[in-house]
Amino acid sequence: MYKKVTNKDVLALEKLIDKTRVFIYDDSISEYSKDELGTLIGKPEVIVKVESTKEVSKVAKYAYDNNIPLTVRGSGTGLVGACVPLYGGIVLDMTLMNKIINLDEENQILEVEAGALLMDIADYTKARGYLYAPDPGEKSATIGGNITTNAGGMRAVKYGVTRDWVRALEVVLMDGTILEFGKKVVKDTSGYSLKNLIIGSEGTLAIVTKAYLKVVSLPEKSLSLLVPYASLEKAIEQVPKILNSGTNPTAIEFFTREALEYSETFLGKKFPDQNSPAYILLTFDGSQAEVDENAKKASELLINKFEAVDVLIVDTDERNEDVWSARSSFLEAIKASTPLMDECDVVVPRSEVSDYIKYTYELEEKYGLRLPSFGHAGDGNLHIYICKDDLSDEEWEVKLDLVFHDLYKRAKEVGGLVSGEHGIGYAKMEYLKESLGDVQINLMRNIKAAFDPKNLLNPGKIV
Amino acid sequence: MYKKVTNKDVLALEKLIDKTRVFIYDDSISEYSKDELGTLIGKPEVIVKVESTKEVSKVAKYAYDNNIPLTVRGSGTGLVGACVPLYGGIVLDMTLMNKIINLDEENQILEVEAGALLMDIADYTKARGYLYAPDPGEKSATIGGNITTNAGGMRAVKYGVTRDWVRALEVVLMDGTILEFGKKVVKDTSGYSLKNLIIGSEGTLAIVTKAYLKVVSLPEKSLSLLVPYASLEKAIEQVPKILNSGTNPTAIEFFTREALEYSETFLGKKFPDQNSPAYILLTFDGSQAEVDENAKKASELLINKFEAVDVLIVDTDERNEDVWSARSSFLEAIKASTPLMDECDVVVPRSEVSDYIKYTYELEEKYGLRLPSFGHAGDGNLHIYICKDDLSDEEWEVKLDLVFHDLYKRAKEVGGLVSGEHGIGYAKMEYLKESLGDVQINLMRNIKAAFDPKNLLNPGKIV
Repeated sequence: MYKKVTNKDVLALEKLIDKTRVFIYDDSISEYSKDELGTLIGKPEVIVKVESTKEVSKVAKYAYDNNIPLTVRGSGTGLVGACVPLYGGIVLDMTLMNKIINLDEENQILEVEAGALLMDIADYTKARGYLYAPDPGEKSATIGGNITTNAGGMRAVKYGVTRDWVRALEVVLMDGTILEFGKKVVKDTSGYSLKNLIIGSEGTLAIVTKAYLKVVSLPEKSLSLLVPYASLEKAIEQVPKILNSGTNPTAIEFFTREALEYSETFLGKKFPDQNSPAYILLTFDGSQAEVDENAKKASELLINKFEAVDVLIVDTDERNEDVWSARSSFLEAIKASTPLMDECDVVVPRSEVSDYIKYTYELEEKYGLRLPSFGHAGDGNLHIYICKDDLSDEEWEVKLDLVFHDLYKRAKEVGGLVSGEHGIGYAKMEYLKESLGDVQINLMRNIKAAFDPKNLLNPGKIV
Repeated sequence: MYKKVTNKDVLALEKLIDKTRVFIYDDSISEYSKDELGTLIGKPEVIVKVESTKEVSKVAKYAYDNNIPLTVRGSGTGLVGACVPLYGGIVLDMTLMNKIINLDEENQILEVEAGALLMDIADYTKARGYLYAPDPGEKSATIGGNITTNAGGMRAVKYGVTRDWVRALEVVLMDGTILEFGKKVVKDTSGYSLKNLIIGSEGTLAIVTKAYLKVVSLPEKSLSLLVPYASLEKAIEQVPKILNSGTNPTAIEFFTREALEYSETFLGKKFPDQNSPAYILLTFDGSQAEVDENAKKASELLINKFEAVDVLIVDTDERNEDVWSARSSFLEAIKASTPLMDECDVVVPRSEVSDYIKYTYELEEKYGLRLPSFGHAGDGNLHIYICKDDLSDEEWEVKLDLVFHDLYKRAKEVGGLVSGEHGIGYAKMEYLKESLGDVQINLMRNIKAAFDPKNLLNPGKIV
């Protein structure tokens, strides 16, 4: 099996990079043994904080030559254990590689190191009149993490997901080879798309060190509409109609009064509207005229044809902050409502969202569990939280497994997939296998072996 | 090596599917031995016209069990020999699998068989108020061919390429296994993206039998602007500025007076404007108000800031037909101007287009060859034609190879890639290898082996 990290290895790593950036693991830095969800634990033997692609290459080569497993870590905000070093070895901490290197305005491409934070990229581009559109909720995530989970976010309805915004990647293979997949170009059909294979591979195929991201001119205006509904079912039923109305929304989110209550408790602040059991939150962006036209047309349709109770225009900064801070706090708010929880990030065809949510209510009854949820109505991606509450550890383990099986089984039945944007990591491997079947899993294993024949890079994940 | 097809095999294939759809190759059906460019010849032993995924599966399994190579063919409109059966064996003709199966309006997904033609998909969706946005020039191509070359087309500036419009694929592996990669969903991070590996794989990894395509509401209006320039250089220099102007064009094409002259000769019809050596052709689409606003803003910028000689609004059907028929005829028109030609489909960063075109003029001088070109200015994808004219076969072979090497070498130097949208097939393998290097080619070979360990599916292509 794998070689254990010895003192000699630590000395060698200190020589390869810099003594001050090599840390032997102990429980005072226990964050390196888990991710945001915190339930899966795997302790690294040594942590190396790299500052350059060359250093990544040197460390990878050393690990490769010495048969030591290597796991890459960004901000550690994942929810499926993808950055947890299950077999010990080296954790490569990418957070010092956080530079925004260059904005190539002629080609509309932003060059960033993999450890750059989403919030920094958003600030940097906005200040220069550009938009990098993917907008996952967790702004302190690194772009490298976003790329390797193919993160989605709120604006996916109009702008697509991270995959659609990556022009090229600099990667380091497990043996230390530095490569570039893709180029600063728009079209590419030059052999198999290795770039697209790396996107969503959760650090198991190669180490992403640099990304060339597509950016576009910053839209002149953005406007949200908060749309109360008499029921969640009624709300979600309108989503395909909204999408077919030609009004081109940027985001279509849904949430219930219940989710808002978690948020109100967590934020200590009332949501601007208190009257309805369910809401759709719509955003439009573009030129002034375009946004005005689309929002006006959508408002009329919502009231007259799409059964909305009302349409509240979110047109002040304060109102915008109130609405979006509530929407953005759901994960944290639900997390704060229970001692422990786990998450199901299924994606189903949009037409199935309403029935699927109803099914979670059935499961709440069936197992006597709380399953609060919210989601991206515009793209069929749901976040369903399974709360431990006052269950014993044993009951929890048993029920969690049963609920997950039911949830993923139903997702498969209605044409869905295990994960929309949070990935598989370790936590969802079993369900991925049930969802895709042995042949696809074997293809993936063969691909893994093609990139990492010694199975040293983030072993025990995805397949 | 491979097993030769015998009478026994033909009888077995006739039994597996239907006698009337199995053809032993002879020169009366020589179209099966080449593609649109016609320079690469490889004769199949038998052709099977399949009608269903099940038939594809049966034929693939038979070929797999008997070690017979299998090459998939759609309309044969490729330009790099990807559908030419270099090692004989079976050609799987997909053209009878041309059904448009279903338009799922709720999920905005069109379900089609792989042999469906682009023009039929365009008509079908338009009639129902939807747009499948990718718009490659060759409308008689099959969607399967478009997917396996990741075809681009004119609208890539705003809408991206075929890859961006494929939600899911039904494929058949070489051993006959039928699988589905992806689902009718928007977001997906459920293991390695096998779907994205198939897209652009030119029939070497699996046989695409069905596709689930994204569609959007048909834009209310589309409007083109024909923009004359004093020189091609001046024209192309404006492209990044247009892209950064916030006017969101759908397409940005460029062409020279020279290309128009080929087209005028070929079509026997004068181009609507005769006064300028170079043109940019811009299109906008969207709602009425959006198009009007963007076209107006762009026109003002073009005249006042972007050095245009004039802006001609293409606002009648007749004018539109004249302009776009000229633009669409370039390939055929240049082909008609020479007894033989070959094509270079490089893609370079947009900022490099102007210099790259100048470099082709240098090569014309250097080799005494004609290299007419045109291209997608908005996405850096150029189509450069190397014309044989009155060269002897020997001179042609020598010069063609030299020119290609120069062209691809320069593309690499300026951060470009071998192919933007026409693929690698057989014709560009050598240049792909020079461009990407051995490590990437070896990764691709390992991926090929992961899908097709016996190397039976379209052997001798890409890697």
